Amino acid sequence: MAVMARSSDDTSARPSRSGERRLEELVGQIAFVDHHCHGIVRGPLDRTGFESLLCEADAPGRWHGTLFDTQVGLAVRRLCSPLLGLAPHAPAEDYLARRAELGSDEVARRLLGGAGISEFFVDTGFRPDRLTSPDELAACAAASAWEIARLEPVAEEVIATHRADDFVEACLDRLTSAAVTAIAFKSIAAYRVGLDLAPDRPPADEVAAAATRWAAAIERGAPIRLADETLIRFLIWTAVDLGLPIQFHTGFGDADADLGRCDPLLLAPLLRATAGGGVPIMLLHTYPFHRHAGCLAQVFDHVFVDVGLAVQNVGSRAGQVVAELLELAPFGSVLFSSDGYGLPELFHVSATLFRRALSDFLDEGVEDDAWSERDAVRIAHLIAAENARRAYGLDDGGAGRGSLA
Amino acid sequence: MAVMARSSDDTSARPSRSGERRLEELVGQIAFVDHHCHGIVRGPLDRTGFESLLCEADAPGRWHGTLFDTQVGLAVRRLCSPLLGLAPHAPAEDYLARRAELGSDEVARRLLGGAGISEFFVDTGFRPDRLTSPDELAACAAASAWEIARLEPVAEEVIATHRADDFVEACLDRLTSAAVTAIAFKSIAAYRVGLDLAPDRPPADEVAAAATRWAAAIERGAPIRLADETLIRFLIWTAVDLGLPIQFHTGFGDADADLGRCDPLLLAPLLRATAGGGVPIMLLHTYPFHRHAGCLAQVFDHVFVDVGLAVQNVGSRAGQVVAELLELAPFGSVLFSSDGYGLPELFHVSATLFRRALSDFLDEGVEDDAWSERDAVRIAHLIAAENARRAYGLDDGGAGRGSLA
Amino acid sequence: MAVMARSSDDTSARPSRSGERRLEELVGQIAFVDHHCHGIVRGPLDRTGFESLLCEADAPGRWHGTLFDTQVGLAVRRLCSPLLGLAPHAPAEDYLARRAELGSDEVARRLLGGAGISEFFVDTGFRPDRLTSPDELAACAAASAWEIARLEPVAEEVIATHRADDFVEACLDRLTSAAVTAIAFKSIAAYRVGLDLAPDRPPADEVAAAATRWAAAIERGAPIRLADETLIRFLIWTAVDLGLPIQFHTGFGDADADLGRCDPLLLAPLLRATAGGGVPIMLLHTYPFHRHAGCLAQVFDHVFVDVGLAVQNVGSRAGQVVAELLELAPFGSVLFSSDGYGLPELFHVSATLFRRALSDFLDEGVEDDAWSERDAVRIAHLIAAENARRAYGLDDGGAGRGSLA
Repeated sequence: MAVMARSSDDTSARPSRSGERRLEELVGQIAFVDHHCHGIVRGPLDRTGFESLLCEADAPGRWHGTLFDTQVGLAVRRLCSPLLGLAPHAPAEDYLARRAELGSDEVARRLLGGAGISEFFVDTGFRPDRLTSPDELAACAAASAWEIARLEPVAEEVIATHRADDFVEACLDRLTSAAVTAIAFKSIAAYRVGLDLAPDRPPADEVAAAATRWAAAIERGAPIRLADETLIRFLIWTAVDLGLPIQFHTGFGDADADLGRCDPLLLAPLLRATAGGGVPIMLLHTYPFHRHAGCLAQVFDHVFVDVGLAVQNVGSRAGQVVAELLELAPFGSVLFSSDGYGLPELFHVSATLFRRALSDFLDEGVEDDAWSERDAVRIAHLIAAENARRAYGLDDGGAGRGSLA
Repeated sequence: MAVMARSSDDTSARPSRSGERRLEELVGQIAFVDHHCHGIVRGPLDRTGFESLLCEADAPGRWHGTLFDTQVGLAVRRLCSPLLGLAPHAPAEDYLARRAELGSDEVARRLLGGAGISEFFVDTGFRPDRLTSPDELAACAAASAWEIARLEPVAEEVIATHRADDFVEACLDRLTSAAVTAIAFKSIAAYRVGLDLAPDRPPADEVAAAATRWAAAIERGAPIRLADETLIRFLIWTAVDLGLPIQFHTGFGDADADLGRCDPLLLAPLLRATAGGGVPIMLLHTYPFHRHAGCLAQVFDHVFVDVGLAVQNVGSRAGQVVAELLELAPFGSVLFSSDGYGLPELFHVSATLFRRALSDFLDEGVEDDAWSERDAVRIAHLIAAENARRAYGLDDGGAGRGSLA
Repeated sequence: MAVMARSSDDTSARPSRSGERRLEELVGQIAFVDHHCHGIVRGPLDRTGFESLLCEADAPGRWHGTLFDTQVGLAVRRLCSPLLGLAPHAPAEDYLARRAELGSDEVARRLLGGAGISEFFVDTGFRPDRLTSPDELAACAAASAWEIARLEPVAEEVIATHRADDFVEACLDRLTSAAVTAIAFKSIAAYRVGLDLAPDRPPADEVAAAATRWAAAIERGAPIRLADETLIRFLIWTAVDLGLPIQFHTGFGDADADLGRCDPLLLAPLLRATAGGGVPIMLLHTYPFHRHAGCLAQVFDHVFVDVGLAVQNVGSRAGQVVAELLELAPFGSVLFSSDGYGLPELFHVSATLFRRALSDFLDEGVEDDAWSERDAVRIAHLIAAENARRAYGLDDGGAGRGSLA
């Protein structure tokens, strides 16, 4: 079990509500595996730029006022200010001024270094031009990084280069290459066609026909954006063949997605079709459908779940959300992810709040005599890191396992 | 900031669970804007009549027994009895006897006056024959009132008068007139066709054809009840053009609505289509989909949300429900409404429980050091009144802003 | 009110969080009516066999590890170990070894006898070959038992025997016979066709045609498994005619069901169609849609709800889940069920956790002065037993009331 010394600047100190917090110190020392995140933005950010990365709103708007007036905004001011040498709850302006003064590299070093994460699995498929690479991200935290290969951009690159000719073969080639170094694949089917996917592997002729239709649409001027259910299923089944874990965006995201199409329950037929196939399926985020996800994790052995993204967004309510996930999801199926994107603050807030939520959950169980301290310690290690290490084969070399042989 | 002295008869006193309640007194003194309610019934009510207005059940029935055996029933007995000069938890029969003794005007004066509401926005579109007018309601509480104009009855009046001739023009005329005095429009699309509305503005010829079909159905004996998706969209887009905020019933209501069609997530396409158009959209009630609503409020700047109706119905659980809404909804997007209807008790219970839920939420955050007391005070004022004042332009004159110019 | 002495081995002792637990002792002494459960497995079980019955997962699998690492697994180790003479939290291996040592009959006697259940309503429609009969189950607990007749197997027996000839008459005969002794009917429409059932009674010719199609499919080699929406509605309406309460599986279950089709909100049209018909409808399990079920219970007088199955599965979170159900559901509409199946442990865990959840809910309300202790006591009796006694006519003889006269 990897153990990591925490920042001596304890940003989560608070009065105890109910006696001893036996698990808090222990959980604070476990190095987390962050099984889904993105790179961060380098360089200065003005207030609008910062707020635009703070939550799932595109930008502060006319009606709501500043996006600092959110749970995540308050959590950043509370938890990150001390690492930047400010008092907790520093006003947003002071926080941003101090951030500019220190410079983005130093801020990243402090916040990522203080997050207690030893491995980052980094989705490189969205705005790679703007964000740090996995190695750059890991360097800020003296940690390790692995790449998650997004499926949809691979098809978009192929269609841009080849049009429909050899579409299938070219996708296979690229995904096979990606699988050599990536630790997992990821699909954003939720954003593109919704999660109500047919469960079967699409026949080759249907895939070819869909690729031809897509290429023709692009010829007529359509943007290169994969939103065809058949092609997305083709990518997913190819990923299954390659044997790497597959992550799915589920639950809330930005305004581009219809949240009603992102309920992980819609994936049930595909989960049934992939059960027993040897490939774990990771349901990301899941909020506000995290209880639905917990049900799926119980009945499908190959399903893993997290409440990444939600934890930082719900701020003071993280404990409740995590506890709800832990109602039905077996303890062996729950993972940590920050879904950090753009701002190093999001990694720090997410890790701090998840640590607290997990240790509170376990401490309360010990206090109520629902489980023993020994069990609680074991569960903490499972959720913080061991489940991810096992599901992703991290101790067997992780990435590079995928091949179509 | 409007501040209002509270009733000296403190109906919400209770033991403190965790130390100081710093926000409780402050929140108790803020005058609320009730951005969605109805009139009350004048005159005596027998037990069946009272119970029929107590919650969303039509009436007490054979199987469940008395509707006082609900959270809202217990809350009325707890919170309203002292204002009527009874001990808390007075038995239902004693309560109703005392109520009859005092007379409905005196009861209304005591309960509405003790609710701490300074502005009532009153939906006048349902059973206006039976309920007090906005001015009458406000007079009971020495408060101000504004009218909310329901969209669907306007079309029903037009079709009754004009049949399909000049349907569009007549609706425009009436809605334009309504917009002069109303503070907002409201749609009950959820009850009539569900919230799965096509997002686009219906073309004039489709509207005319739908009106002709509707008139023909009425000729054949159909009741005058608008349940045509095209016509409802026509009303909504006309309301958008008129520039007033638009309220939507979402979430639970009585047995007439299929709750599965009332999930605010179904509105996502329409919310996307109206984003940036300058008109705020208010998602009313939202329970049990309040977390869904919170997601929408975060990603759509023009979306505001409440848990009115739910707060009184869930009684002792109001704190939990409000806290769930405050997970993702930005603090600048949350409103108070009582959805009081018929019984002045519902206004008092709703305001008291919401006050307590809000102050508990904020106090717990201060206690856990999740935010500063200064932030908590600011957020309290936003949610209790300032968000509504801003969204409805109350300080710019509120009603009368709408025109098609 | 039936009162039952509890096991002197208090398995639920724990530190008080907030002062007196006035309701705990009282609720601990009320004999529960378990309005939905199954038989238990006789004979020895190895570890895989035991884990396969522990939750809704088919069996422990490659990825999650042992199913003891679930809330229900920890609850069994905590709550059942003392009744088997072990320390609380005994390791799974020790627990299973002790279980084998005592023998399944003695284990059943201890666990069922300690559950404080005086009446078991037993669904005999699933794997009756493998499970104890209602009388055998009741004998273990010195309690009474009633049979619940599943609808779908009746049609499957008829089609196997008669093919389509006289299908309707044969079903009527069998259901009429079943109604003489059964206390209720049960439908698993959720598993077979989903709960999105058309609300109307299917015409006789449509039923006959559907039976003919089904028989033809079986001739061609299809398995005898009823999954026809028309035939299932025929069974349901026949049950309505027979006047017995009808239970519906809703909410989560094993991997065979698509949870998205099990939302009780999908039943709303059928509930509307059966309102006022004199037959109560019981929504079983309901989690994670228990708040949806609570809404239905409020607006439909003939609807009763429980969170059976969920209570044992969510373990330490049972209090939260029960409290969520009690937000909107009238206190007169909430029932207890264990949904125990296979393992006597599940009855004991379910009853213990539900008792605690209910008494905590009521105690907290008393402590917060939301209701009086007198009301709390009354509500405890309603939910533990009186609602079931009333809804099922237990004091009027219960079973045998059904006839088509």
